[in-house]
Amino acid sequence: MFTVNAYGATSATEPLVPMTIERRDPGPHDVVIEIHYTGICHSDIHHARSDWKQETYPLVPGHEIAGIITEVGAEVTRHAVGDRVGVGCMIDSCRECANCRKGEEQYCLKGNTLTYADTGADGRPTQGGYSTHIVVTEDFVLKIPDALSLEAAAPLLCAGITTWTPLRDWGAGPGKKVAVVGLGGLGHMAVKLAHAMGAEVTVLSQSLRKKDDGLRLGAHSYYATSDPATFEELAGTFDLIVNTVSANLDLDAYLSLLATGGTLANVGAPAEPVAVNVFSLLGGHRSLAGSLIGGIGETQRMLDFCAEHGLGCDVEIVPADRINETYERVLASDVRYRFAIDISTLR
Amino acid sequence: MFTVNAYGATSATEPLVPMTIERRDPGPHDVVIEIHYTGICHSDIHHARSDWKQETYPLVPGHEIAGIITEVGAEVTRHAVGDRVGVGCMIDSCRECANCRKGEEQYCLKGNTLTYADTGADGRPTQGGYSTHIVVTEDFVLKIPDALSLEAAAPLLCAGITTWTPLRDWGAGPGKKVAVVGLGGLGHMAVKLAHAMGAEVTVLSQSLRKKDDGLRLGAHSYYATSDPATFEELAGTFDLIVNTVSANLDLDAYLSLLATGGTLANVGAPAEPVAVNVFSLLGGHRSLAGSLIGGIGETQRMLDFCAEHGLGCDVEIVPADRINETYERVLASDVRYRFAIDISTLR
Repeated sequence: MFTVNAYGATSATEPLVPMTIERRDPGPHDVVIEIHYTGICHSDIHHARSDWKQETYPLVPGHEIAGIITEVGAEVTRHAVGDRVGVGCMIDSCRECANCRKGEEQYCLKGNTLTYADTGADGRPTQGGYSTHIVVTEDFVLKIPDALSLEAAAPLLCAGITTWTPLRDWGAGPGKKVAVVGLGGLGHMAVKLAHAMGAEVTVLSQSLRKKDDGLRLGAHSYYATSDPATFEELAGTFDLIVNTVSANLDLDAYLSLLATGGTLANVGAPAEPVAVNVFSLLGGHRSLAGSLIGGIGETQRMLDFCAEHGLGCDVEIVPADRINETYERVLASDVRYRFAIDISTLR
Repeated sequence: MFTVNAYGATSATEPLVPMTIERRDPGPHDVVIEIHYTGICHSDIHHARSDWKQETYPLVPGHEIAGIITEVGAEVTRHAVGDRVGVGCMIDSCRECANCRKGEEQYCLKGNTLTYADTGADGRPTQGGYSTHIVVTEDFVLKIPDALSLEAAAPLLCAGITTWTPLRDWGAGPGKKVAVVGLGGLGHMAVKLAHAMGAEVTVLSQSLRKKDDGLRLGAHSYYATSDPATFEELAGTFDLIVNTVSANLDLDAYLSLLATGGTLANVGAPAEPVAVNVFSLLGGHRSLAGSLIGGIGETQRMLDFCAEHGLGCDVEIVPADRINETYERVLASDVRYRFAIDISTLR
């Protein structure tokens, strides 16, 4: 065991504070990563505050991790000291179930191990990337291509793969019309990725406040959902809508924007059930779907695609001692388009 | 114009009565069909009673029509006098929009013409198959293969194609586990079709009352949804669930029965919106979808498949003067598994 500096929550109601946590000594298949940047995901706030379930404290969030390998276990073959690598939302899975064998470890039937707010194979709580180092089994460590900076790559490990998967699964590409609901951390990556895949991209945002950004990121058009005319004008338009908004939207209105056979893919979810009129689905052979991050192999393909197309997250770098105020900015949607913590400020 | 005997509604609140209606003289592309059998679909009752919208009366229901061609227009090439044919839920569409060109006339972007309770190209109300003859443009007339009796074929034009389409679209076949919710007119065809496609079929019904029938129709297993243990035992099992029930079910419970990537396809819909927890979709890459009958070409493929596999609807034949009491039996689910009106009783 070794002790590392971290920043975490001691309860659901108090601000995050500096702390130390223990990391296991690397086993034969582990790598030790010196973390350089960790993205701040909205779900970090939900976990820190026990919004979804009662968490165990202290809790160190962070599942958008980029850094450099400083040590490898004796049997590690995939990575080497000095490699630029990333860790996303999960650090292990059963590797034996049908889904793991298909490379869909995010749907591990025995339950994968989340990077933080979970219990590791050793029975101890897992702790995330708001810390100087992390020890991870090599199979759940991604290579960050040289073409991507570590800070721009870090949020790809969650925001990138979360939007990549539905775009790939529902066929975003040339000749397809894709809408992205919400232009936040997830939405801005969805726009970049869908545009790079060759789709015609429309942003559907509450207001036109970020229109210039949306067009710069690759959107072909940009509409305000606060304007009822948007729903008239765009009725029956899209092959795929990727909904990155966790708020409880009028899903029937969004389903009406789908072309025949289209899919409304949700990558976030409101805590409360949503109301849907099944006729909205019947009338146009439409689907309401959900998608959760992506498998390890798929995450690597996403990173390689981003490197090839020069896509990274637009990040604003913050020091660790500003995490609490940054959380408030995330909650106020005052972010263009992802915060990344400069982990050197924790050393 | 010529006058034919029919059975229809004069208002939303009174029983159906014998009446006469006028049919157009056949144009160059029309065929005249002497109707032999017409299935009774639950939606006939909804239309007759203005449950969905205010209808125009008199209203003659019936969109599961099987009969013999007695006359053809001068330019008809697809059919001939004496042919055994059927007519389903639609009798025309624009034929020009993207969906019509794809053979998905049920999703005609300009709005297709329903067999009854709609307005025809001549501006007159369309009237359905509870009548001795119907005149239809040849392109919307299906051939009934010799291997199928007219009475067993009639309900295929709605109940058959409605369940065929989701089974085909979501890949029912060998190695796939398909559940059918509800064992009524639609459900019994879904079981037959899915079994013939090679899938392993499970019926999910409120009780085990029809279990013997379900197994005889081709189901591999049969569960009562009134038993909470069903949802525990079958969690994560099915690649596809075809929901034939229009009542407002606990969709989250049914979504939990889907394997990763599975689809819950609804072919009916409750009038009120349903509640869905989006986490039910996210957690397993699941979809909630809708499907509406099928295109004309697809309907012909379904009929040919049924002929090849010896599949018809299980019908109970009733005379026209028992339509009203038969409606009550449909509403009481006292049907195994479709009523067909013997139209000779109208002559």
